[in-house]
Amino acid sequence: MFLTVEGVEGAGKSTFIGLLEDALKAQGADVLRTREPGGCALGQQIRPLLLAASQKMDRRAELFLFLADRAQHVAEVIRPALAHGQWVICDRYADSTIAYQGYGRGMDVEALQQLNDHATDGLWPDITFLLDLPVEVGLERALTRNGREGLTQSEGRFEAETLVFHQRIREGFLTRAARWPERFCVLDATRSPEELLQSALQYLKSV
Amino acid sequence: MFLTVEGVEGAGKSTFIGLLEDALKAQGADVLRTREPGGCALGQQIRPLLLAASQKMDRRAELFLFLADRAQHVAEVIRPALAHGQWVICDRYADSTIAYQGYGRGMDVEALQQLNDHATDGLWPDITFLLDLPVEVGLERALTRNGREGLTQSEGRFEAETLVFHQRIREGFLTRAARWPERFCVLDATRSPEELLQSALQYLKSV
Repeated sequence: MFLTVEGVEGAGKSTFIGLLEDALKAQGADVLRTREPGGCALGQQIRPLLLAASQKMDRRAELFLFLADRAQHVAEVIRPALAHGQWVICDRYADSTIAYQGYGRGMDVEALQQLNDHATDGLWPDITFLLDLPVEVGLERALTRNGREGLTQSEGRFEAETLVFHQRIREGFLTRAARWPERFCVLDATRSPEELLQSALQYLKSV
Repeated sequence: MFLTVEGVEGAGKSTFIGLLEDALKAQGADVLRTREPGGCALGQQIRPLLLAASQKMDRRAELFLFLADRAQHVAEVIRPALAHGQWVICDRYADSTIAYQGYGRGMDVEALQQLNDHATDGLWPDITFLLDLPVEVGLERALTRNGREGLTQSEGRFEAETLVFHQRIREGFLTRAARWPERFCVLDATRSPEELLQSALQYLKSV
């Protein structure tokens, strides 16, 4: 099974993924936890280019770097793991690119869908857990966690953007969830991590 | 005017570009000479990833790295230079990607055309000089110039491939030239650099 976890900043993806990984392992599953960008050796070299807030990067260049990372990650890590019967849990995947670059930055959503199809050679997740919450709550969480001076690079990058930008991203994720309800499991991320985990495990049992 | 120079390994692009640049400057033109990959700061960081022969890179990842470099190069370097009235001479551009990745590696040529349209936001050269010659001659030149131990990274990368591969690339370039005769100026690169230059200058006067 190929699982991805998506959501706006501060939705609690890392905590959720940690709990989910432990729970699946406790059930005897062989789990590979990975992330984008940066889930393979090439991606490790690409990731700093993407996260450097100082770079005045063209939005198309940014998009293609994400896609290069994804293509290599799929070919080198995700497909081989799935072929060996592992469960793969990936922190962000194609839906993030489409939510951030498409709904957030206004690039053509259908073109992004096709570009991601091309980059992944058609590999989409079996299940995507969307950790959904109001963006004000998410951003406040991210700031509280790190402090304004201690923002992670990623959050520093996006903190400069407006609340409206994050609102568009949230709506983009929800739009995608409504389009592929058989793939998306939307979870209310204002609840506790333990409650989220129980909902996720219940959902997995039902599919 | 946006000029690009294309051709297989050992076609003599660098020498030709140097002569062309000098000749245009002598005529009073403001000339910017650049190249792909690596024609902008981001590209300088991407270029080593592309040229490292040791990386087992997925062909889609490789493609998207080329496109990321191109998108940034167009946005940051080429378009501003053209807007300031400069002549831009670029050593390799989208035609190389389509010849190498499409005709050479067998990726879908029409998809590559669209991807390059997307990466460049529709910027194609006014004139493309294709330095054409038999691949045996080109590869022999590249080897003689550098010695087998002194191959440049790029040549080392491609030397491992077969002659047939380079033959497909040459034919890919020629196919593109035949499709867009109004943009392509095909030059017989077995002639001397000075003869090539004179042909190119004559062609530029005629358009």
